[in-house]
Amino acid sequence: MPNELPETMRQIRSLVKASGTLELTIASVEMPQPEPHEVLVRIEAAPINPSDLGLLLATADVDTATTSGTADNPVVTATIPPQALRGLAARSGQSMPVGNEGAGVVVAAGSSEEAQALMNRTVAIIGGATYAEYRCVPAALCLSLPEGTNPADGASCFVNPLTALGMVETMNMEGHQGLVHTAAASNLGQMLQRICVADGVPLVNIVRRPEQEQILRDLGARHVCNSNSPSFLDDLTSALVDTGATLAFDAIGGGRQVGQILACMEAAANATATEYSRYGSTVHKQVYIYGGLDRSPTELNRNFGMTWGIGGWLLTPFLGKLGSEGIVRLRERVVAELTTTFASHYTDEVSLAGALNLDALKVYARQATGQKFLIRPTT
Amino acid sequence: MPNELPETMRQIRSLVKASGTLELTIASVEMPQPEPHEVLVRIEAAPINPSDLGLLLATADVDTATTSGTADNPVVTATIPPQALRGLAARSGQSMPVGNEGAGVVVAAGSSEEAQALMNRTVAIIGGATYAEYRCVPAALCLSLPEGTNPADGASCFVNPLTALGMVETMNMEGHQGLVHTAAASNLGQMLQRICVADGVPLVNIVRRPEQEQILRDLGARHVCNSNSPSFLDDLTSALVDTGATLAFDAIGGGRQVGQILACMEAAANATATEYSRYGSTVHKQVYIYGGLDRSPTELNRNFGMTWGIGGWLLTPFLGKLGSEGIVRLRERVVAELTTTFASHYTDEVSLAGALNLDALKVYARQATGQKFLIRPTT
Repeated sequence: MPNELPETMRQIRSLVKASGTLELTIASVEMPQPEPHEVLVRIEAAPINPSDLGLLLATADVDTATTSGTADNPVVTATIPPQALRGLAARSGQSMPVGNEGAGVVVAAGSSEEAQALMNRTVAIIGGATYAEYRCVPAALCLSLPEGTNPADGASCFVNPLTALGMVETMNMEGHQGLVHTAAASNLGQMLQRICVADGVPLVNIVRRPEQEQILRDLGARHVCNSNSPSFLDDLTSALVDTGATLAFDAIGGGRQVGQILACMEAAANATATEYSRYGSTVHKQVYIYGGLDRSPTELNRNFGMTWGIGGWLLTPFLGKLGSEGIVRLRERVVAELTTTFASHYTDEVSLAGALNLDALKVYARQATGQKFLIRPTT
Repeated sequence: MPNELPETMRQIRSLVKASGTLELTIASVEMPQPEPHEVLVRIEAAPINPSDLGLLLATADVDTATTSGTADNPVVTATIPPQALRGLAARSGQSMPVGNEGAGVVVAAGSSEEAQALMNRTVAIIGGATYAEYRCVPAALCLSLPEGTNPADGASCFVNPLTALGMVETMNMEGHQGLVHTAAASNLGQMLQRICVADGVPLVNIVRRPEQEQILRDLGARHVCNSNSPSFLDDLTSALVDTGATLAFDAIGGGRQVGQILACMEAAANATATEYSRYGSTVHKQVYIYGGLDRSPTELNRNFGMTWGIGGWLLTPFLGKLGSEGIVRLRERVVAELTTTFASHYTDEVSLAGALNLDALKVYARQATGQKFLIRPTT
């Protein structure tokens, strides 16, 4: 390990106390030493994705957050609702590092050939603890980026790109002809729209505001339905008749929209049916909930026949089903189209301490479409 | 066709008028003539199953029902809620025969060997229009019952027995280790309990009243949870830990119970987990909704991680997946265990006209556990 590296490094930690308090801090920990098959990455950019917030915030109410400590070493505390504490018992008392993915430069490498080959390369990594100055990972987990790649462009190589590609792969695996996507103007939704244009996949986007509609139309979207429009259900049904889409990915979770999508799919299926079926259409209609922007209960009126399914969808089990050849194929596409199809846009850049600033925290905790934070731990 | 058969026969009909009125009548129709491959069955017994009520009552509000006509030829009218009319458009104006299954005696047969072999046999049939004095069906659809079988014992050979067997088959097909069943003291639930005892399948029954609990315990049930007990969620979780059941069949549909079952399955999975997983357990938890005793919305709090599914379950598509060898295997078991495992109990026997009596109609429309009607069209 080169001499110039410091002996310690800083890392964001999230701690759930048995008393029901969340505590966020920046810990100073020993600099890791790479094993023969590992590399040490100096993290230059790590995104705050919705999928990071569960571990970081532990469902704490950010409106109760207060801060102490110093500007460089803030200590944030917030209250966790009592009903959520039971589900957090397994992490209670453990100070946990956070951050699913990021990008940086390999500054030290283990003795293996594979690790040495990555020395000084810019790489993207996944696997947790990226909200830190450094992260030691197996060389095999690194995605080596082309010479000259800006680490900020490589920070979001995994979660959003693989999720968007995973939606299209799932559609093909499960025999559907098109997709529906909610909260569709998000970074991920824009990637999905670009993939669908490139691959000729029929896509129905659902957004909540006219300006979000425009973002997607500018990317070539044919179907964008605004859920706040009085004609939403008719618009959605007609887009579903047009596309034949019977699979939806929903980032919201709560409320009535999941059921509305199934009901409109059923209406679309019946619009082309030739005879009455007492149990509804025989077309399988599926919604996967992959996010939880709305934590309120999901309410289903079940006005969509008997041939339907709803389920949770997560990237990791999907990749397990896809298999290693498929994963390599998707990773290669992400690298090849990093600054086009898979370009991410960040509205705010913050340091590690900046990520624990109360004003910033309240913004990214809201998960509003269009707001996206990038942590810059070492720049 | 023998001379002694009348020229016409009586048949219950359900008509949805575009105005939003349901009309139930007894039509007099021409006696069908069997084609070479068909037989004519004199229906002696046909059950009123929950799965018949959708077609019969068309979601009409039975509290608005009024009757006219004569005692022998009643005409029942009732109001269909406006929001349900759209889904009924495809059957509007068509007078539809009703009744999924039944049993009776073959009184005329087509010229084929297969049809002739059934002459004078007692058979069980499925395929609609069994709330009638006679029904003409392909010989291949008849389940020939052992000499001396009481038609009342054969009336419910298909829907409940194949559904109960289908639950266990689905459990095996989808790799689960045990079952959960709601509204478990029903005729179907009792069959399922007997199957599970015989086959050594762990079963968790959910009921609403202590006397229902006792019915199942008397059949050898090890796990019966009362959803009205204050300790219901703890009782259910502990039964799930004990059985490892991760698949539920739900007859109710509405309310919070589907979500509670998933949450207790998740708690049971986590009770044996060794480390915290931010997205919940990786054990797949599934609920199939196969009935709609409660038509109110399904409310999901989604406090059960990300590895879960909910869907509709219907007998016909399941049998399609099972294939013809499997169907033959299940049918043979039903005949062999007709008066034991698959025994049904009826609280009321009515004529065709009696089935349209307002007092009777209001009772069976309620689908209360323990109340079961048998129509006797010709006895």
